[in-house]
Amino acid sequence: MADTSWPGCSKSLKGVILDLCGVLYESGEGDGVAIPGSIEAVKKLKASDLQLRFCTNETQATREKFVAKLQRLGFDISVSEVFSPAPAAVAVLKERGLRPHLLVYDGLLPEFDSVDKTNPNCVVIGDAAEQFSYENLNEAFSVLIDLENPKLFSLGQGRYYKETDGLKLDVGVYMKALEYACDLKAEVVGKPSPTFFQSVLNDMGLQPHEALMIGDDLVNDVGGAQNCGMKGVQVRTGKYRPSDERHSTVMADGTVDNLAQAVDMILNQRH
Amino acid sequence: MADTSWPGCSKSLKGVILDLCGVLYESGEGDGVAIPGSIEAVKKLKASDLQLRFCTNETQATREKFVAKLQRLGFDISVSEVFSPAPAAVAVLKERGLRPHLLVYDGLLPEFDSVDKTNPNCVVIGDAAEQFSYENLNEAFSVLIDLENPKLFSLGQGRYYKETDGLKLDVGVYMKALEYACDLKAEVVGKPSPTFFQSVLNDMGLQPHEALMIGDDLVNDVGGAQNCGMKGVQVRTGKYRPSDERHSTVMADGTVDNLAQAVDMILNQRH
Repeated sequence: MADTSWPGCSKSLKGVILDLCGVLYESGEGDGVAIPGSIEAVKKLKASDLQLRFCTNETQATREKFVAKLQRLGFDISVSEVFSPAPAAVAVLKERGLRPHLLVYDGLLPEFDSVDKTNPNCVVIGDAAEQFSYENLNEAFSVLIDLENPKLFSLGQGRYYKETDGLKLDVGVYMKALEYACDLKAEVVGKPSPTFFQSVLNDMGLQPHEALMIGDDLVNDVGGAQNCGMKGVQVRTGKYRPSDERHSTVMADGTVDNLAQAVDMILNQRH
Repeated sequence: MADTSWPGCSKSLKGVILDLCGVLYESGEGDGVAIPGSIEAVKKLKASDLQLRFCTNETQATREKFVAKLQRLGFDISVSEVFSPAPAAVAVLKERGLRPHLLVYDGLLPEFDSVDKTNPNCVVIGDAAEQFSYENLNEAFSVLIDLENPKLFSLGQGRYYKETDGLKLDVGVYMKALEYACDLKAEVVGKPSPTFFQSVLNDMGLQPHEALMIGDDLVNDVGGAQNCGMKGVQVRTGKYRPSDERHSTVMADGTVDNLAQAVDMILNQRH
């Protein structure tokens, strides 16, 4: 019978999904910094027989710019391996004939170039950071409150993330703000949405039990993956906090110091 | 047997509590504008045998400045008749030995002059309007997330209010944002907190069934007063929206076009 506990479950794995910010690197001034050992760890995974994908809720830049940054930091990574919320949202908007008012970081706007934004009938928010001004949030609110069927899409639902100079409020905080202001429930595009994880599994052609997610966000990475039937391992880098290890509802299958340790444990099981 | 329905209940009333913004006046550029008939309505109440108090969640200015504005608009009103959240919060902070980090409108700061704000061990937020920048919200978040027992006080919990140029997001929206970011529940000071309404009743020396609240906010004015055992009447001015009249949980005892109409109905019953 297959070992389903961590790290024994690594023997039967066929694919690994990695979160980016807080796992591969810490964001901050300029490109941020690679987390020690993570460049080598990605190399080892690529040299193995495991499939590898990257799954991020990053919404401050287009995938192209974001991947170029990671390449400058030294990572072997390409755009086709990266899943992020904006392209997923564009697909949903087109499918449903929705025209968004966008409250997103300027750097993300090109992802929505192909979408009709005239006379908006929904609002899309991403991690707009300092562009989450009172004026901009009030504008998004005004669009929603005037709609007969207000519809809010949130690119992720994170509480906060870690930059080199401290913790920063993430998009989920502003999603909750608009939900309360307009008395509605947002639709989350990105992690932990099961639709989003499933699209990554589909791309690899794998069943959930054949894949493992590694992330620094207990709820959105680990819990989200587990809800889809995958294993979820948390790293003690990025936004990790010791209290995560006694969380009331989510328990990681494993907790490791960093990506390098996780990858060594996985590959050791398979040798 | 006493008539407990609106407006028949007016016969046995001993006191009336009025909300200010959206009932007496609409805020906006400069002092805002008085709502037609409301100056005369306040005069009529003052000339009657009913006690009168004003109960507001206004937190953009000190009570002194705020009352001076209403006097300029033509209202017969004095500071001692007005109940607002900041003085109530100051009392709570002193009683519990708490030192606040303040995220409030600059105009409100003098209310907290007597409070020790060094090395903060709690956060107080008010309607900071354009001062609800990403930077300021992130700073309040950083204070809370570093505390062992994070404590957030919110001066009211309104969703939005109406200014002459449109609806504006209120403090409750940012309360929900910080609650989610820090995984905590804020303590609301001001309407609809029962403690707050009770302090107004105490000041008049009345039992709840002897008092009526008139406001434009269905949940915080009407529902809050009803939760304390008072009657609650909603005016169709200010932030009133037609959907309030089919709200899922709060039903006003009466709905009237404006304050002038409410006061005429009350006084007609008593003649």
